[in-house]
Amino acid sequence: MDYESKKIDGVLKQDYAFFSHGLEGVAAFETAISYIDGKDGILIYRGIPIEELAEKSNYEETAYFLIYGSLPTAAELKEFSEDLESHISLNTDDIKWLKDFPVSAHPMDVLNTCVSLMSLPEGGNYEVCRESDLRAGIQIMGKMPSYVAAFDRIRKGKQPIPPDSKLSYAANFLWMLNGEKPKKKEERIMDLCLILHAEHGVCASTFGTLVTSSTFSDVYSSIVSAIGTLKGYLHGGANEQVIRMLERIGSSENVEGYINEATKKKEKIMGFGHRVYKALDPRARILKEYARDLTDKRDEVLFKTALKLEEVMEKKFGPKGVYPNVDFYSGFVYKALGIPTDMFTSIFAMARCAGWIAHILEYRESSRIFRPRGIYSGPVNVKYIPIKER
Amino acid sequence: MDYESKKIDGVLKQDYAFFSHGLEGVAAFETAISYIDGKDGILIYRGIPIEELAEKSNYEETAYFLIYGSLPTAAELKEFSEDLESHISLNTDDIKWLKDFPVSAHPMDVLNTCVSLMSLPEGGNYEVCRESDLRAGIQIMGKMPSYVAAFDRIRKGKQPIPPDSKLSYAANFLWMLNGEKPKKKEERIMDLCLILHAEHGVCASTFGTLVTSSTFSDVYSSIVSAIGTLKGYLHGGANEQVIRMLERIGSSENVEGYINEATKKKEKIMGFGHRVYKALDPRARILKEYARDLTDKRDEVLFKTALKLEEVMEKKFGPKGVYPNVDFYSGFVYKALGIPTDMFTSIFAMARCAGWIAHILEYRESSRIFRPRGIYSGPVNVKYIPIKER
Repeated sequence: MDYESKKIDGVLKQDYAFFSHGLEGVAAFETAISYIDGKDGILIYRGIPIEELAEKSNYEETAYFLIYGSLPTAAELKEFSEDLESHISLNTDDIKWLKDFPVSAHPMDVLNTCVSLMSLPEGGNYEVCRESDLRAGIQIMGKMPSYVAAFDRIRKGKQPIPPDSKLSYAANFLWMLNGEKPKKKEERIMDLCLILHAEHGVCASTFGTLVTSSTFSDVYSSIVSAIGTLKGYLHGGANEQVIRMLERIGSSENVEGYINEATKKKEKIMGFGHRVYKALDPRARILKEYARDLTDKRDEVLFKTALKLEEVMEKKFGPKGVYPNVDFYSGFVYKALGIPTDMFTSIFAMARCAGWIAHILEYRESSRIFRPRGIYSGPVNVKYIPIKER
Repeated sequence: MDYESKKIDGVLKQDYAFFSHGLEGVAAFETAISYIDGKDGILIYRGIPIEELAEKSNYEETAYFLIYGSLPTAAELKEFSEDLESHISLNTDDIKWLKDFPVSAHPMDVLNTCVSLMSLPEGGNYEVCRESDLRAGIQIMGKMPSYVAAFDRIRKGKQPIPPDSKLSYAANFLWMLNGEKPKKKEERIMDLCLILHAEHGVCASTFGTLVTSSTFSDVYSSIVSAIGTLKGYLHGGANEQVIRMLERIGSSENVEGYINEATKKKEKIMGFGHRVYKALDPRARILKEYARDLTDKRDEVLFKTALKLEEVMEKKFGPKGVYPNVDFYSGFVYKALGIPTDMFTSIFAMARCAGWIAHILEYRESSRIFRPRGIYSGPVNVKYIPIKER
């Protein structure tokens, strides 16, 4: 093959219009679900600022709003909440599987496997349409908190707790996890975290879910991709890493040394900076006050370490637009609610499920398979040498 | 918030450099793994044309070449094959799970769930590095044919068949599936199909695997995303749909009518056209001859229907660059090998696993999280109306 005729300036001529490693700065589709202004630290869900939803809404309503595009009437919200609730109970197969899993498994791997298991009864008869997508999506949203809570109990040798249909989504999760009805304040904070994490534009997990659904794969497979993508420590796994990093630092006196060491080694300081925000993440601003309010004596050293870290980082990197992000504070809140550190990312997944479903449904309307190009930088005209001559 | 100041020509000013719905024409990274020239119908793996590998190599060698970047010496190939084989046996947990799954489950959903289950023993201790990625990748490649074959036997009420360490990867799969040692010709064709499907640039499933691994998620999660993405009928699911479409058409006399009807309804004719190829897909060219050769009396009507479909389509759409793609013929070959139609995409996954692993390892070297933008087209300044007033 004559590749020389296909070269321009010594490089193979390849058919693409724009190159961006990692797709930074490339817009891949239009969306009416959320808008982020990273410069001014603004986040809106379908036109309403996150601060207003955090103050006035609840997770069920926010999820409905994200998925259906308008705020529900009282009747619509009731129906939606009942629909979610009708899926929340685990069946005997679910419990059997959870009990079969190794107790040392990571909760995100368990969640991924559970959602994948949910697809099996479909038997390949999933017809891609709004009705199936919604049915599967709401089923997954309903069951996620139950899987997360039940696995935690099972790995601790306790019995799973069935949901209480009188409780909200947030309260039900805490009830199934702890076996105690949460206080009003705890329920409110759990609910707030779910609202704040429900949607955030084209983050990697949302993009992952769209890449999967863009081939007209089903919603189970698509959410499974999202969970696997969220798991990475550069994305949803970050909130878990923040607490582990603070525990490693140990106390506020060690902060300066840690940052200097990390900067020298070019290591990432977890919980700081964001590809989009060059101002303070509005979700971090809201959560910080709750984190302070909730932190009890047990976590005081940790919180002081965090405050010191924030202070030193702000001096060093604030002028460069590096601020604490939402992961920096969500960990404290979850810790204060008695949630084990390795479950933080699963809660992120529970919350973001609303955004994932909203994006799948929206993109289906103008679906086009995601198939970017890779620029070939390898050799041409390589000889196949028989194995005996190698 | 004053959004007016943020508008240009009535549209919110948003920070992106290039817009392409579905990322067509956008290059997202550099790769030395494969190169496709869609205009001339060329496909090379690391510099060697697919025709040469199809003729001279085997799947294990091709997989090694894709993953490690050079053709193996005899010793390297032996070690790699033994490594694959050491993972091929299912353990008692695997068998128990497969027996617990509903027999009506789709093989792709089963495969997805099985690979997800493989991640559980890691217990969140997966350290992202070349060593772990390779270990997990080879483990998945080793086990995939066993899962696929064992589930098919179990759903038919038969016992799973343990692998035979003296057999090649291709032969072992047919042995575990059928319980008969395949003839040389059958083994060769199975092997050829695996080689032809082992890699194909940035298709949606490979892109999906990279989106997941780009957050520094593990290889299990990344391959699970790839399988879920491949499942969609616009991608890997297409080979299954081709046979189902031909069965619906029924005979060569009905072909013209079917195409006219589908064109009127703007429905896709499965197995034709490709985002990249505007000439005949070189893999289709190779497979077509084998499909003809293998097709026995049982499938003669189907094959004649296919030939007629190809003829009519070529007259109608050939000048527009629409040709049969690899999915159009792979189905026949699998059918002739006695493989059930709903398992075709799983075989695609087994083969492509080599490409997925090669891409994950390559992209890790210059990893950057995939986070394109969505252009916000929704409303701003939406009022939160209290529920009683809605």
